Amino acid sequence: MGRAVAARALSARRLEILKSAAAAFRRRGYHGASVGEIARALHMTKGSLYYYFREKEEILYVLHDWSLDLLLERLREVEQSGAPPAEKLRRLVRSFAQMIIDELHGTALTMDLQALSPRRLRKVIAKRDRFDRGLRAIVREGMDARAFAAGDPKLAVFAILGAVNWIPRWYDPRGPAGSAQIGDAFAALVLDGLRKRRR
Amino acid sequence: MGRAVAARALSARRLEILKSAAAAFRRRGYHGASVGEIARALHMTKGSLYYYFREKEEILYVLHDWSLDLLLERLREVEQSGAPPAEKLRRLVRSFAQMIIDELHGTALTMDLQALSPRRLRKVIAKRDRFDRGLRAIVREGMDARAFAAGDPKLAVFAILGAVNWIPRWYDPRGPAGSAQIGDAFAALVLDGLRKRRR
Repeated sequence: MGRAVAARALSARRLEILKSAAAAFRRRGYHGASVGEIARALHMTKGSLYYYFREKEEILYVLHDWSLDLLLERLREVEQSGAPPAEKLRRLVRSFAQMIIDELHGTALTMDLQALSPRRLRKVIAKRDRFDRGLRAIVREGMDARAFAAGDPKLAVFAILGAVNWIPRWYDPRGPAGSAQIGDAFAALVLDGLRKRRR
Repeated sequence: MGRAVAARALSARRLEILKSAAAAFRRRGYHGASVGEIARALHMTKGSLYYYFREKEEILYVLHDWSLDLLLERLREVEQSGAPPAEKLRRLVRSFAQMIIDELHGTALTMDLQALSPRRLRKVIAKRDRFDRGLRAIVREGMDARAFAAGDPKLAVFAILGAVNWIPRWYDPRGPAGSAQIGDAFAALVLDGLRKRRR
């Protein structure tokens, strides 16, 4: 299953709406952004937008759900690759950072979970937990194999999630660093830190 | 100038109000929390709270300003220590993480900047920039001295800020890891990454 599957499961129009909504939520917050505004940015009427999503909360939910599906697909690819743990982690950190920048425009994963209904919130949290556990398993695998220094895999994964999820706060599309460079720099930091290694 | 100065500049009562407000903002968001609620949690009337702060926005501003003063004092201590860059960075990351957990209860620095007036927003951003630049200077110093691997100091600092500022999202005071352990783990990750070093 490649990324294409999750992307295809959403019609092109629904995806367009999601991206417009993500931009509006980022600019004005979930509560501040209106469905009318999201529709207008796409030259749609509010009525035709409601054909694709029944309510604003559904847009928020699908945005989270779709983003997490993309992340979980990358996780599965990496898990099945049979690569050593350091290489698994490098690929995952790099593609996680690139995805946040290139596809989610840095919004989806950090947005207003509180606005979701309890049932939808549980689903989103379950997927997020699956991603966190997958990352943790790779870190633990590296520690067990003594490729990584001993430590608490949970804390390491929280540091990684923080570094990557924080990207939207500072990323500037007009800035000098593109998503590939940022992804590589973050993966290198996670694996080797700042301090120079002796050869 | 030690931390005591900034802390003393706020009366004990103002500090109590700030902490109660931080907790309310965290629970209900800045817009969701009311001054009445913040006062009630301290068994004060709204009227007597207004003796200490003229409006909710002033509370938010002082919270940011006070937190940044604490951070900038740690930065100055570290800058003046004459320690090698790796040791400066270790101390700063450790105390930044501990401060977020123990003193700010993980709220102040990530909260609703948009709600501030333009004049106050500029002041907060100026102090935040000073902290970011200080961190960056230490990273650059380490790279110049070849104690750190070559790289982009800006990206490294963004990764550090993200990892630490994300702590409030997952920190559980009832969890097994205390602030000292988290601070040490994050400092070690920033300096040496996950991969084991050869002796």
